[in-house]
Amino acid sequence: MKKATPKKRNAFYAQSGGVSAVINASACGVIETAMRQSRYIGKVYAGRDGIVGALTEDLIDVSRESPAVIRGLKHTPAGAFGSARFKLKGIEQNRAEYERLIEVFRAHDIGYFFYNGGNDSMDTALKVSQIGESLGYPITCVGVPKTVDNDLPLTDCCPGFGSVAKYIAVSTREAALDVASMARTSTKVFVFEVMGRHAGWIAAAAGLAGRTRGVRSTLAGEPPHVILFPEIPFERERFLEKVKQCVTTVGYCVVVVSEGTAYPDGKFLAEAGTRDAFGHAQLGGVGPVVADMIREAHGYKYHWAVADYLQRSARHIASKVDVEQAYAVGKAAVELAVKGMNAVMPVIVRRASKPYKWSVGHVPLAEVANREKKVPREYITEDGFGITKACRRYLEPLVAGEAYPPYRDGLPDYVRIKGVPVRKRLRTEFKLS
Amino acid sequence: MKKATPKKRNAFYAQSGGVSAVINASACGVIETAMRQSRYIGKVYAGRDGIVGALTEDLIDVSRESPAVIRGLKHTPAGAFGSARFKLKGIEQNRAEYERLIEVFRAHDIGYFFYNGGNDSMDTALKVSQIGESLGYPITCVGVPKTVDNDLPLTDCCPGFGSVAKYIAVSTREAALDVASMARTSTKVFVFEVMGRHAGWIAAAAGLAGRTRGVRSTLAGEPPHVILFPEIPFERERFLEKVKQCVTTVGYCVVVVSEGTAYPDGKFLAEAGTRDAFGHAQLGGVGPVVADMIREAHGYKYHWAVADYLQRSARHIASKVDVEQAYAVGKAAVELAVKGMNAVMPVIVRRASKPYKWSVGHVPLAEVANREKKVPREYITEDGFGITKACRRYLEPLVAGEAYPPYRDGLPDYVRIKGVPVRKRLRTEFKLS
Repeated sequence: MKKATPKKRNAFYAQSGGVSAVINASACGVIETAMRQSRYIGKVYAGRDGIVGALTEDLIDVSRESPAVIRGLKHTPAGAFGSARFKLKGIEQNRAEYERLIEVFRAHDIGYFFYNGGNDSMDTALKVSQIGESLGYPITCVGVPKTVDNDLPLTDCCPGFGSVAKYIAVSTREAALDVASMARTSTKVFVFEVMGRHAGWIAAAAGLAGRTRGVRSTLAGEPPHVILFPEIPFERERFLEKVKQCVTTVGYCVVVVSEGTAYPDGKFLAEAGTRDAFGHAQLGGVGPVVADMIREAHGYKYHWAVADYLQRSARHIASKVDVEQAYAVGKAAVELAVKGMNAVMPVIVRRASKPYKWSVGHVPLAEVANREKKVPREYITEDGFGITKACRRYLEPLVAGEAYPPYRDGLPDYVRIKGVPVRKRLRTEFKLS
Repeated sequence: MKKATPKKRNAFYAQSGGVSAVINASACGVIETAMRQSRYIGKVYAGRDGIVGALTEDLIDVSRESPAVIRGLKHTPAGAFGSARFKLKGIEQNRAEYERLIEVFRAHDIGYFFYNGGNDSMDTALKVSQIGESLGYPITCVGVPKTVDNDLPLTDCCPGFGSVAKYIAVSTREAALDVASMARTSTKVFVFEVMGRHAGWIAAAAGLAGRTRGVRSTLAGEPPHVILFPEIPFERERFLEKVKQCVTTVGYCVVVVSEGTAYPDGKFLAEAGTRDAFGHAQLGGVGPVVADMIREAHGYKYHWAVADYLQRSARHIASKVDVEQAYAVGKAAVELAVKGMNAVMPVIVRRASKPYKWSVGHVPLAEVANREKKVPREYITEDGFGITKACRRYLEPLVAGEAYPPYRDGLPDYVRIKGVPVRKRLRTEFKLS
């Protein structure tokens, strides 16, 4: 019996939420793979500014980009097609948004929806697949995991994290050398604020800075000396005592603080700051708040740094493993889709830690959506200020290898898409709520 | 007539002031060259924590380090021997310090003094050479230029600057891509605070981020859109108008602000911040101050980053030209010294910009000491918010080439010295004033 040839349909790809150094590597994996699946997939479209592009029928015709630019996405940070902080509401609250998506998809014969994002986005992808079905427009929805925070469940790690982890570990090691060389006559305390609103994975990665070859002293003396995790309620006195002890014995103290560090009552340190003369909440993040706390208590000379977007866009120091995994989940998403797997997400499966071995598996979107993975207690030292060997064993493979972008005139030669729009087919305009 | 063999004497090397990504490359140049000059130079000593080590007779015996570690200094950031923020007072105010230096030098038969630092340090080196003479202890003093700020006169550029320039240009390009991809639904303004208290060279380097291949738009639309220099008095209204214009036309705005940006009356923006409820000057630098100014005026969603020590220790993204020049001035310093040149400093001479050609010259310390080189007005665009083509032509060669350090377990494998102390010969202790 002859097998029926599947109907060829178009694919839609969108980036969602905060971007990363390797989300475009996932885009590259999706696009290159989709273009090779010409039996199942026709055109590949991307949403300009993520899902907003779908709602407003602002689609980019990816086939109009040169193969060199598509390939170059693998070494280009941030969201080449534009991303969006735009969470679709529940179907009950805003059914119109979902119906509009299906309307646009139908108009452009889109049969595959690849959504590259974090927990919220996986929830959206799941809902689109459900409503498509109920509206008589079946669409294959596959999530592509992305988050710098590493807080997605069910995957061993999340593409985007390895590179920010490497950036933070490298920067901490470098800045700590700076402080160490100046401490006798100058700065005694350095505070480094890193991302991670709810999970402390990025802060934990700073702990990797502390192992240096040929050092006789114990790890305890090596920077970073104090890590503040969102998972550990902040106790001011214990913290200040630890800093004092460190300056007294080591000569200086390097503190890494997660933006999500909070008091036992759940209030973020960043929010608990003082107010200015006009009653405005004090500017800035937790870094300066912690630095000032130390100055007030001990009077030490301090410096602080806030990496902010620098950390999640630092493609110049991306982890090779991370780039490869980002590409692999993009590729796997397409392979799953053309096999007819719907409402799933590829995940990274760890086969072994030393030497590191990984493969790509997949899980139902329903199990991923709206769940968070925090740093487990056994990855944090008993005093709450450092990482354990188990944590190091988990993190080390994720920052392994360098994947330098090409350079031109001394700067990374990042690509930029042409972004040729797909001709609109709908007469209706959609107003974003 | 037979030429008299010069008396062989020991050499002393010290690092001074804020460190850089390549000051150890200069140390490497000094040490490797001195060790090859065995006809003139005996032992090579280094001051532990810079000049403080000389005053307290805390010398490091560099010959006890392995050649691999010495070689490794070329790829290791910060001050491997320790640096110091310690400015010797004028000879009239504290003659004791100078006399003590000569006492220590005499005790260890030090005939060569290599001082690796900025303007202040060149002044100190000059004074040491003068007082040595007047105390009947002739010593050859040669400065080795170092500053991330690039504000030393008479040298075309200063080792340390090229690498921080590259870091800032790369980071600006990367963070700008991040903002561009999120701007439609999220952050509209990104403020990036960089170093440079009195000269805006580092801020100017951010301007290099703005030229990307294959872009049809004019440079005017490319980030960074606004650079705030210490050389240009800050006018609040004109700045806010520029930001608004930029967000309206480009969709977002990237602002790079030098920590030394000041109002027309000379008051730093960072100091002019508000005070908290207890009357403390507001925490933090100029970055959050500028960001808040924009929020108040326009209400845009913003993010800000403060690179602080990260920028000057970022050896992982050092400029190859900078590393080579740093090594070259260290090497030249020793070569000048053994030729009997006293009270001089090697400088970088630009032979051509395109293709870039440079050589090493030298100037008298007396002409360098306590002078500052600012960004000339013709390097800044007429509106005061950007860099000109001439500035770009000057800066581009300085960030050229990559000089990646070796990696181990995903992190740069920076070396650490053993730091074996030289046996003390003096019974007297010296108290730092």
